[in-house]
Amino acid sequence: MSQPLRVGVAGLGTVGMSVVRILARQENALAARCGRPVRVTAVSSRDRSRDRGIDLRRYAWFDDPVELARSGEVDCVVELIGGDEGPARATVEAALASGKHVVTANKALLARHGLGLARAAEEAGVALAFEASSAGGIPIVKALREALAGNAVSRLYGILNGTCNYILSRMELEGLSFQDCLKDAQRLGYAEADPTFDVEGFDTAHKLAILTSLAFGTEIDAEAIHVEGISSITPLDLRMADELGFRIKLLGVAERTKTGIEQRVHPTMVPKSSAIAQVMGVTNAVTIDADAVRELTLIGPGAGGDPTASAVVADIADVASAPPRAPFGRPVDRLEKPQRAPMQRHEGGYYIRLTVHDRPGVAAGVATRMAQAEISLESILQKRAASSAAKDPHGRSGAPVPLVLITYAAAEATVRETLDRIAADGLVSEPPQVIRIERE
Amino acid sequence: MSQPLRVGVAGLGTVGMSVVRILARQENALAARCGRPVRVTAVSSRDRSRDRGIDLRRYAWFDDPVELARSGEVDCVVELIGGDEGPARATVEAALASGKHVVTANKALLARHGLGLARAAEEAGVALAFEASSAGGIPIVKALREALAGNAVSRLYGILNGTCNYILSRMELEGLSFQDCLKDAQRLGYAEADPTFDVEGFDTAHKLAILTSLAFGTEIDAEAIHVEGISSITPLDLRMADELGFRIKLLGVAERTKTGIEQRVHPTMVPKSSAIAQVMGVTNAVTIDADAVRELTLIGPGAGGDPTASAVVADIADVASAPPRAPFGRPVDRLEKPQRAPMQRHEGGYYIRLTVHDRPGVAAGVATRMAQAEISLESILQKRAASSAAKDPHGRSGAPVPLVLITYAAAEATVRETLDRIAADGLVSEPPQVIRIERE
Repeated sequence: MSQPLRVGVAGLGTVGMSVVRILARQENALAARCGRPVRVTAVSSRDRSRDRGIDLRRYAWFDDPVELARSGEVDCVVELIGGDEGPARATVEAALASGKHVVTANKALLARHGLGLARAAEEAGVALAFEASSAGGIPIVKALREALAGNAVSRLYGILNGTCNYILSRMELEGLSFQDCLKDAQRLGYAEADPTFDVEGFDTAHKLAILTSLAFGTEIDAEAIHVEGISSITPLDLRMADELGFRIKLLGVAERTKTGIEQRVHPTMVPKSSAIAQVMGVTNAVTIDADAVRELTLIGPGAGGDPTASAVVADIADVASAPPRAPFGRPVDRLEKPQRAPMQRHEGGYYIRLTVHDRPGVAAGVATRMAQAEISLESILQKRAASSAAKDPHGRSGAPVPLVLITYAAAEATVRETLDRIAADGLVSEPPQVIRIERE
Repeated sequence: MSQPLRVGVAGLGTVGMSVVRILARQENALAARCGRPVRVTAVSSRDRSRDRGIDLRRYAWFDDPVELARSGEVDCVVELIGGDEGPARATVEAALASGKHVVTANKALLARHGLGLARAAEEAGVALAFEASSAGGIPIVKALREALAGNAVSRLYGILNGTCNYILSRMELEGLSFQDCLKDAQRLGYAEADPTFDVEGFDTAHKLAILTSLAFGTEIDAEAIHVEGISSITPLDLRMADELGFRIKLLGVAERTKTGIEQRVHPTMVPKSSAIAQVMGVTNAVTIDADAVRELTLIGPGAGGDPTASAVVADIADVASAPPRAPFGRPVDRLEKPQRAPMQRHEGGYYIRLTVHDRPGVAAGVATRMAQAEISLESILQKRAASSAAKDPHGRSGAPVPLVLITYAAAEATVRETLDRIAADGLVSEPPQVIRIERE
């Protein structure tokens, strides 16, 4: 049998410890699969004294992950430290510079430095593998890089952040506010103390940047992503969505349009009948539209120690089994420079919830402005105030009431200009809520 | 750049022609991905004169696919002839014997001869790749063989036959009979003139045999599969399923049980809320339960020229990019002999539809027999005849009416014996309908 692959694990949090456990548990099966033993030989973490439930004394210990990355006892460095700079970056760079394979779950590092790291890996002739960086246990990197090799992808969209999907699912099912659900998510450990990174869409954007590169064969372009989070979504929006046959999901969407590659992260109305609409709670899902396969959807756990470790171990098994592939599916020099499609040129359907004064002519005024801009409306839904306020002979109170419009495909810039005009007309009492619609 | 991979396509039906077109269309992208050009150099079919819409004169033509398989102009033979014997088998064997890589979509050949062919491929040091053999465009082979390398799979279940799912979907949505839907499916080209192979579950069984081997690291054991088709399913069963919160799908299920590996193909009640229940029409889906990843579901087109060709081209790209992997994920000698779990030992929930005489004491008699066998009932649903037949003072007509039972987990043998007793008691007027329940 061939030489063992010696694995060094840098970062012994939930995922790191799960990787150590899985490699021990699956030792025989992995040796059979890979044609050689796969063994942890070294580990690194900040705190050596912490009880992690496993005797780590059989592995070489490094206080400094960069030392582990340079160690002669390691062939493959697993970076699970996190963060786009600091020790994570130093560890990955040191590993590549000393000719070691790298497996990482670090989306932020890849979104920011992926291209340079891929080039370093290619030059060193080693692997840079990152299945665990996007959508946790879902093998989306392998699907895009290998399984869809014969396809031209036209669109990729997915639920890539379990925290947001958990919050939106509970808001929908229990009619709760965003703040209440966020607090519960924090209490249950589904959301961080500072939730900004998740709920404002930045985590989804990092993952999307990686998947876009793989899907379209383009250089990573994280700065091009239009990012909106879910904190503005109200229970009213979720009820309206339900009435209109939609659910609201935070999606990352990458699409090849006439103007270039469009990358966007925002709350999205998806038809209730779509596969992605069925995905509730912390589960993730990705759908790929491509010319040969048509439509492929992968659904699975997007986070958690064991599911993420499942992806890490798959990468380690690939490293042990086969010569390295180009990290982004093709050599860095053959990745295209992405043509950015500006968000103002986005075309799609829109859900627009206006808060209007409940008085004669308001709906007509709004509809007229839409017609002048040649925005076609699929439906209008007006909810009368149920309050006890005084009403005119037509049942109107003058109080603020929601007026919901669903548009057919329209250009983002046109929609925004028209909403500015409607505001200038004095028809609305609050800024509008605008949620893009994504259809299968 | 390295030497081109020279591809010979044997079988120029819908899939074969799509492979030829995709390899031409994606020539540059594939060269970038694989680090070498991938080119069709030879083709084979029975009828050279047929117009296939592409000029095939640039490729070497072989009337005999075995000649193509032996040709010095080919490195990788794509077998798309079909059938578990005859020219398909001869072509694959000739290719492996002459040291050529083989890519095939032939599930019947693999289910029957997969082990021997894998051994031949290993001995020759070439690839035997078959992503297209199971679930069409869904990359389930790659997922099981590579992406889940760190997992112990406990269960795999899927909708693996589009024809059956199309028929069941239409029966459910339109209340039509099996025969009416089958005729429509035949008219639309979703079902063969002789539909036995699809509707009686044999096609699903071939695919399941392959997936079971990959999931559990066991030798293919197609003969062990318990197979039932969908021709006995009635609109009444679909209505009852709906009322009880289920849908009926033809599933292939492979499960590691206490008694061994259970492999079964049968109509199955799945909870409406499950991901697999959402899959309608000709679409396929596979769910894998495993210790690390928990639950992973892949949904996509299970048939059709382009989707199947997508899987074939992925295999070709793997052949062009990397040294061959063991066809079933580990060397043939390291595959386990499967311990067969007999169907009589199956344990699960059951939907049982009895046709009983509408008279006093029948439901009690049935419930008593169930209780004596220690089969616990989750629900009982009795539908009174709506007919105008004469009724006794309790509204009973004595006419045959359905009595539906949903059981908690029970053993197959116990359920069958109990139903025999109920029949012997004279309580039923027709043989019972029994549909197993599969929960997430």
